[in-house]
Order: sequence, then C-alpha cells, then structure tokens
Amino acid sequence: MTQINIGSTLQYDVRQTTIFLFKIAAGWSSHQRVLSEQLNFTPNLDVENCQVGVEGNRLHRVIVEPCQFSVDYQATVEITHEIDRPDSVGESRPADMPAEVLTYMNPSRYCESDLLGRFAFEEFGNIERGFTRVQAICDWVYEHLDYTPGSTNATTTAADVLLQRTGVCRDYAHLTITLCRGVGIPARYVSGYAVDLQPPDYHGFVEAFLDGQWYLFDPTRLASTVGLVRIGIGRDAADVAFSTVTGSAVMTQKNVWANFADAQPNVNQVSAVSIS
Amino acid sequence: MTQINIGSTLQYDVRQTTIFLFKIAAGWSSHQRVLSEQLNFTPNLDVENCQVGVEGNRLHRVIVEPCQFSVDYQATVEITHEIDRPDSVGESRPADMPAEVLTYMNPSRYCESDLLGRFAFEEFGNIERGFTRVQAICDWVYEHLDYTPGSTNATTTAADVLLQRTGVCRDYAHLTITLCRGVGIPARYVSGYAVDLQPPDYHGFVEAFLDGQWYLFDPTRLASTVGLVRIGIGRDAADVAFSTVTGSAVMTQKNVWANFADAQPNVNQVSAVSIS
Amino acid sequence: MTQINIGSTLQYDVRQTTIFLFKIAAGWSSHQRVLSEQLNFTPNLDVENCQVGVEGNRLHRVIVEPCQFSVDYQATVEITHEIDRPDSVGESRPADMPAEVLTYMNPSRYCESDLLGRFAFEEFGNIERGFTRVQAICDWVYEHLDYTPGSTNATTTAADVLLQRTGVCRDYAHLTITLCRGVGIPARYVSGYAVDLQPPDYHGFVEAFLDGQWYLFDPTRLASTVGLVRIGIGRDAADVAFSTVTGSAVMTQKNVWANFADAQPNVNQVSAVSIS
Amino acid sequence: MTQINIGSTLQYDVRQTTIFLFKIAAGWSSHQRVLSEQLNFTPNLDVENCQVGVEGNRLHRVIVEPCQFSVDYQATVEITHEIDRPDSVGESRPADMPAEVLTYMNPSRYCESDLLGRFAFEEFGNIERGFTRVQAICDWVYEHLDYTPGSTNATTTAADVLLQRTGVCRDYAHLTITLCRGVGIPARYVSGYAVDLQPPDYHGFVEAFLDGQWYLFDPTRLASTVGLVRIGIGRDAADVAFSTVTGSAVMTQKNVWANFADAQPNVNQVSAVSIS
Repeated sequence: MTQINIGSTLQYDVRQTTIFLFKIAAGWSSHQRVLSEQLNFTPNLDVENCQVGVEGNRLHRVIVEPCQFSVDYQATVEITHEIDRPDSVGESRPADMPAEVLTYMNPSRYCESDLLGRFAFEEFGNIERGFTRVQAICDWVYEHLDYTPGSTNATTTAADVLLQRTGVCRDYAHLTITLCRGVGIPARYVSGYAVDLQPPDYHGFVEAFLDGQWYLFDPTRLASTVGLVRIGIGRDAADVAFSTVTGSAVMTQKNVWANFADAQPNVNQVSAVSIS
Repeated sequence: MTQINIGSTLQYDVRQTTIFLFKIAAGWSSHQRVLSEQLNFTPNLDVENCQVGVEGNRLHRVIVEPCQFSVDYQATVEITHEIDRPDSVGESRPADMPAEVLTYMNPSRYCESDLLGRFAFEEFGNIERGFTRVQAICDWVYEHLDYTPGSTNATTTAADVLLQRTGVCRDYAHLTITLCRGVGIPARYVSGYAVDLQPPDYHGFVEAFLDGQWYLFDPTRLASTVGLVRIGIGRDAADVAFSTVTGSAVMTQKNVWANFADAQPNVNQVSAVSIS
Repeated sequence: MTQINIGSTLQYDVRQTTIFLFKIAAGWSSHQRVLSEQLNFTPNLDVENCQVGVEGNRLHRVIVEPCQFSVDYQATVEITHEIDRPDSVGESRPADMPAEVLTYMNPSRYCESDLLGRFAFEEFGNIERGFTRVQAICDWVYEHLDYTPGSTNATTTAADVLLQRTGVCRDYAHLTITLCRGVGIPARYVSGYAVDLQPPDYHGFVEAFLDGQWYLFDPTRLASTVGLVRIGIGRDAADVAFSTVTGSAVMTQKNVWANFADAQPNVNQVSAVSIS
Repeated sequence: MTQINIGSTLQYDVRQTTIFLFKIAAGWSSHQRVLSEQLNFTPNLDVENCQVGVEGNRLHRVIVEPCQFSVDYQATVEITHEIDRPDSVGESRPADMPAEVLTYMNPSRYCESDLLGRFAFEEFGNIERGFTRVQAICDWVYEHLDYTPGSTNATTTAADVLLQRTGVCRDYAHLTITLCRGVGIPARYVSGYAVDLQPPDYHGFVEAFLDGQWYLFDPTRLASTVGLVRIGIGRDAADVAFSTVTGSAVMTQKNVWANFADAQPNVNQVSAVSIS
C-alpha cells in the first residue's frame, strides 16, 4: 500500500467562449483509491463531471468566457499494488481473454500494430512468453530510442518513431504498445502522474494484459512503476489528452507534481506491478 | 417499421488449431430488434457469445481443430427507423454532447482526423451545420472517389484515400468519418448488412451524431439507408472486422445476403434516418 | 535585361573538422550572366569549385578545422528574360520533349507525383493546356496553403503539404512541381535569390517546361518572377540545399539579400518569364 | 572478361495513340561493351534513340497507333570486371568524392535516406568502413526481408519496406541504397539483366561508391554479380522503369532472358566487382 500526493495547475488566457475537457483527475479502480482531492477553477465555474467508457476515465467539462483562467487539482491517492515475481507471469491465451480486453489488440491512431506486426514477430516472436517478453520489448524501446523533447509532435505514430528513433514518453509508450499488440499481447496507454518525474509533467506509460490482469510498464525508465498514478486509460494518447480545447485559449502555465506521502517503498525495479 | 432478412455463410480450411472471432450477428438497439436468428457451426462446436464494450457489439468466439469448417448465420431483424426531415436536424454543441459520444471525436487508426482537420474546415467549415453538412461531406466523398475494388488494402487510411481518390465501402466510410470529426461532428463506423447490395458482401457505412442522436449515412450510395442492418459499431474498421483469425485457416467461401421481408418501404433517399 | 545585386553571409561555429558543401553562388545559363562576384571565406581557405550535373549547378567545397567560420558571397547578375504572352505558351507533347527533360517527370523525394497524379488530373485535367494550366496550379497552391514558418520541416513532402495545408516556399514549390508532373508537365525546383523577399532568405521556386523551354513560377507570390536569380536546379529541395555539413558545426548567423541594380523593371506580373 | 547474351520481348495491346519510352537496351561504359545488338519493333516504326543524363542511360521512344505491338531486343555484351579483394576496398572521404557522385547521397523518391539516417547509423555506424560495411548492409537486408512477389507495389518506399519486411528486388535495392546513403556512402539503383535469374525478369540491383569507383551489390542473392548486365542507372527505380506508357496500352507478354555466352566464370561470390 502506497500513498502518493499529486497535483497540477494549468493556466489559460481565454480569448473567446471556450469549452475545456480536462482529464487530470486520478482515476478509480479496485487498486487505486482517491483518499482526498480538490479541484478548483478560477474564476469559479460550473463543472460537469463525467465518467467515460468502460474504463471509468474521469472527465471535467467547463465552459469559460474570456478571462485569465486557471484550474488547480490536488489529491492523495492510495495504491494497493499487486506485486508478482516476473517469471511467474505468463501470457493469456487469445481464447481466454475477456471480450473487453480484445479491443486493446486492435490497431489505433498512433499504434499501427497492423503495420508493425511482422517486425514485432521477427524481433520478439521467440522470446519467452509473459512478463519477460513485454520487459524485452520495453528494454528494446529504451535502448533504441533517444529521449529527445521536441523531436516529435502530436501526430507522430509508432511507425514514425520506429524509423526516426527519437521521442518522448508518449512515443515510447506508443511503440511499446504497438509491439505488444504485434505479438498478440493486449496493451493500452495510461496517462498519469509519476513520482519524482524529471522534468515534472504529466506522464504516459503502458499496461499490458498478462495472466488475466493488467501490468504496468514504463519503457522510458524515468519513473518507478510503484510511483505511477493513473489518470485515464485509452487505446493510445488520442484518448487521454489532459486537455481538449474548443474555442480560443492559450496555455500560459503548466505545473505538475507527484511525491510519496510516506517514505518511498523499497520495491525492486523488476517486479511485476499491477494496479488494475 | 421494416423487416429485413439477412444471412451469411463463411467456409474455412482450418490447418491447425485456430481461434475465430466472428462479428457477423445483428446487433441489438432500441431501434433494431432481432426477431429470430440461427447461428450454426459445422462441425458443431462450443461457442462463446460475448457482448463487447458500451455499444454492445456481439462477438462469437470458437476454437476450431483442423477441418473443413463453416459458419452459417441467418436472422430476421425489425428496424424502427426514426425518420426526420433533414433540414430540421442540426448539430450538437460540444458542451452538450454526452461524454460517451466524445470518444468518436478522437482520431483513430484509419481516420486521422488530426491530420485532416484543416482540410475539413477549409472544405466544409462554411456549410450550414447539421444533417446538411454531413450530407455535403458524403456527396463530396462520393463525387471525388472512384469505387474501385482492389485499389486499397487493410492498411489504407482516410489520408491515403484522400490522396489516391479510390477505394471501397470501407474507405468511403473512413474518409467520411474523418471529415466529420474534422469539423467537430462525432462519427463512427458501422459494419452491417445492406439490402440488395451489389456485389453482395458485408457493408461498411457511417453514423454521425447530430441533435442528440446518431444518423445513418452511406457515402457509397450503394444502398438505401432504410435497408441497412447493423452488426457492430466502432471507431473505424479496426474494431469490427467480420472475422479475426488466430492460427492457420484459409477462407474458401463467403456468401452474404439481405432483403426486405415485406415490400420495400417507400422512403425518400434524402430523409434523415436514425436507428440508434 | 535586368541587373540584380545579390549576396549572403553565413557564419558557423565549427567544433571539429567539418566538410561544407555550399550552393549559394549564382548559376550560369544563356539568360543569366554573372557580371561580377566575390566569394570570401574567413579564415581564408582552399576552396574547391565544382560544376555538378547537366544543369551546371555550382558547388563550393571546403574543409574547415575548428574555428569561427564565415562565408560571404556577393555578385551582380544580369538576366535576359524571355517574356512571352502567357496565352501563347502551350505545352510540349511527350513525344517532343528532349530526353534530358524527361527526368523532371519522375517522382522525387519531396514530390510524389506518382501518389498525387489522380488528384492532379481531377483538379487540373480539364484546364486549358500550357502556361494557363501551370498558373492555375500555382493559384490553387497559393489559395489552399497558409504560409506558416515552422509548420513543416526538412522531411515534409508534397503529399504532407496537400493534407496539412501549410508550409513555406519550399513546400509551395514542392506541391506545385508535383501537381505539374501529375498532369504531365515536367517541373523542377530552383533555389535562388529573390529581390525584396520578406523576410530575407534564400528562396525556392519552380520552373515548368512549356513549349520547348523552362518558365518561372513562384506560387508563394512573395516575389516577382523578374526578380528571381537562380542558384541551382534540382528535382526538389534535396538537390539544392544551400549548405551540406559533414562534421560538427552550428550556424550562428545567416544574412541574405537581393535588389535591383537599376530601377525595378515594369513587367506585368502575369507575363510568362523564362530564363533557361 | 565475360560475354553475356541478353534479350527481352514485350507485347502490348495498344488501344489509342500511345507514346512508349523503353529502357531495355544495355548501357555502355568503359567496362561494358555491347558487341552486337538488335532492336526490332512490330509493326516497323520510327524509333528515336536518346542518351539521357550524365550516366548515358539509353532510351528508345516510339509513337504507336492502335495495334498489336511488340518490341524485341537482343544483344551480346562483353563485360570487363574489375575484381578486387573485398578487404582492400575502403570508403571515399566526402572531401574526395567527385562532385557528380554527391548526387547519390541525396534522398530520392523511394530511398528516404533523410528519414532512415539514424537507423542506418545505429545499425551500421560501427562496422568497418568500406566494402565490408556495404556487404553488411546487404546481408542485413537479405536476412530481414522476405522475398515475396506481390507484397509491394510501385509506390512502396524503403521506409515502408523497413517496416513491413517484405519485397522484391526493387525493394531490396531501395532499402540497401537508403542505408548506404544513411551512413554516408553514395549509392544508386541499377536496372539490368541477370544471368539465370529465376523467375526470369528484368532485375534491379545496387552500385555503391567505394574507393573512387562504383561496386556492384545484389542484396537479393538471386544472381551472381559477375552475371549482371547494366541497362541504366538512377537514383532509384523512378528513373529506370523499363517502359513508360503515355496513352492506352495493355502489356500482354513479357519475356526476359540472360545467359553466359561462354562457360560461367569461376568467381568467388564475395569478390568486390566493379564495372563502372
């Protein structure tokens, strides 16, 4: 059981009536409990609080008239990790996967697993199945990409990244997800907070479906998996943008932070960690 | 109220143990009722019948040992169309769209609305909002593409189609969906049966979200919207492949058919038709 | 006959032994004479002066040890334009095109005329052949793109630009060239200087082969065709980069300028101008 | 010295006046001499025989009225290979490369060396420079691709091939060329005839510029480099299509053949062979 304090502040210069969708609040699951949270808008506004899709992503929608606008979110989250020995975690057979998991085998906007399937099989087809194989994919991605802010943009896909070999957390996650799907392992994108992430920002990482549950992976190695807090889940980053803006607004500030509420847990980096 | 008889037969030469996922059975909705149906496998097999996702797509999963394998589906479906005058159907404001509809604004594998948004706004930004605008998009797609079997493949996207200007029903639907999303209209892919489709096959068409409900569009003009029966719904064709095969099997036959159980309803082609 | 003064200064911080290829000197042709020119390197260096390919592009190659390095080029160029009435300039028949011109019908790195041929024919297939048709392509490009510095990069192609609808002179030229080739008109990229270009920089424009000679076009409308001075010719920008750097050097300054040596000639904007 | 007999017959059903450009005749170089050749058209036609570009590609242009049309080419070619020991062949320094060779460092339509440069350096940056390095690239291409007729088409590029891992001789050559350019070795596409190629067809292979001259490579391993006869040279396949058809004609037959005029020379497969 781990307690993590998280928060973020976003400021906008709103120039005409604008609709904001925010996906910045910690999600709920059987392993992730929000102990306390505050969401404040300045100026004060009516907020619509929605739950989206089967994964229960939370969405806050506000309509903002021209002003200097800011949103501030803070929470304390308790996470009950399920920690397994990696070598005990195998893969699920396609015949046994729950139907709602099958969606995460499909190619998506930034994860063209249909294009990269052959590559995935060639590189990872003969590796021991299970956690080991997903770890091998993460290692490959880590070793072959350079973490280079500014080298990619909002339309960059896993295939682009595989060729150009640079990217940021979003790109690392997309390529990892794509290669997992390519060898038949359901995988999905998680947006969230990461303890002690440098530079501080929202983070993007990966869940792969193994042995009947979802396991956490962060191919960037920028954060420990036990310090990851989930905001939302999607097929790829297209589903979990921290803000979607319809109207006219310019972001003028973004602060994001996360830290352990208590002493950092002493968990070996290579453990298999699941919170779903 | 329309009654439609539908059916399809698929045969496979199965060469090793193979898992099939079929999405060929008519879906249920408040407007589409399955009056009767039969699903037969030869040889006889245990079938797992799943419901997937919030849209209630139906999925049949079977494990097949090497054999000559066939699946035969037949159903009679009753559809209660809601038919509106097109000029009375406007667009929903982003602030009013239900949260579960927002997903269909996101770009997806074959519908890169992030790439084509500028093009969409340039071509369709100034057209009267609502049914008229979606119809204008469908007309544009119809007029600028040539329906050419074999000109595209399973990895062809809306951006590809916009450049090469040829495709089949899947491609027409993808481009239409992408342009709708590009101007801010949620849109999704529907797989289904279409009365009197020539040549007979499964069909792919479009639903766009207008005035609080989903309306049917078929940019290919190959079928009347009142003769469309829904199998499943997805962000694009990646979600509703009629079969997904894991193992080794070769399809040796495919027959698909659909016809009106009673006399063909006399519905004007340009009516706004909703079944969701 | 027009006299134009041109020049450019480039400065680099050279960090290890570096080979520079410069393509910044005015080219020679039967219509473009270099009356005087100076090329100075600081520090002073041995320069290799090459002529490349059938088009006679000039290339200066130097090997530079670590230092603050600058190159300064100045020239006065005399251009004897051949100016025709646009409506008198038709297209060459493929059977009559000189063999060395045929190369400029082939697709190239940034001009995928094989991909965009259908689009080109659909939009421009029925327009009167000749200067009028190329002008129509330039007008279309001008009207459908937004000139947006920073919106594209060194790998952006004509197909990308056609979708995203933004770019700079290089992208305008690439799309124009691609659409010309797409309808069967040889077209090539010209790098050069442009009188009074704002902001000052090297420029990229287009030559199309009509009625047996090459005519100048600038789809950006940023400069008059009578104020264009040619540096080099290529299939696209890949061939005429103003500098190619092998080693390690950072450009610290770039100044480019061009102006009429005498009063600006009074030439109607829509005349067909040829200098090849 | 090797003598090789080559030939090809092409038949077309010409439906309206059509212009054909053929690139099927053996080229000339200091190492490749055409001892005898015949080019016959049925029906008999005026042929324009052009030399294109600095490489001296030969081009035959004919205008054909509607008819059953065939072209038949036969030649005996003498090739004086220069055969070196591979480990003695190094790379040229950029500062020493002749200016006309530099063109073959630029990215081209099907060889996006600008996109794949990082990948090339990562895989091949640390390999011993020279023939060994190009051979390593050819080996990598051979080992990572499956030779699969029909898996690619006329618009497939090296980047596509690198992802999908299948192709034919054209694709093998494009990827090899791209990776060579990516590590700074000039490389170009050669169309030609290959002794005993199975199935018989025109062939596409590679020349890389090493130690001051062009060396032959065939990454498909379908033919011995001493049995390769050059038709033409280009940046990639865009430049050397065996036929370019403007009008309306359907190819109804294609026969291509090549064999040694005398007993097959006994040349070790790994020798460095140059004919340029």
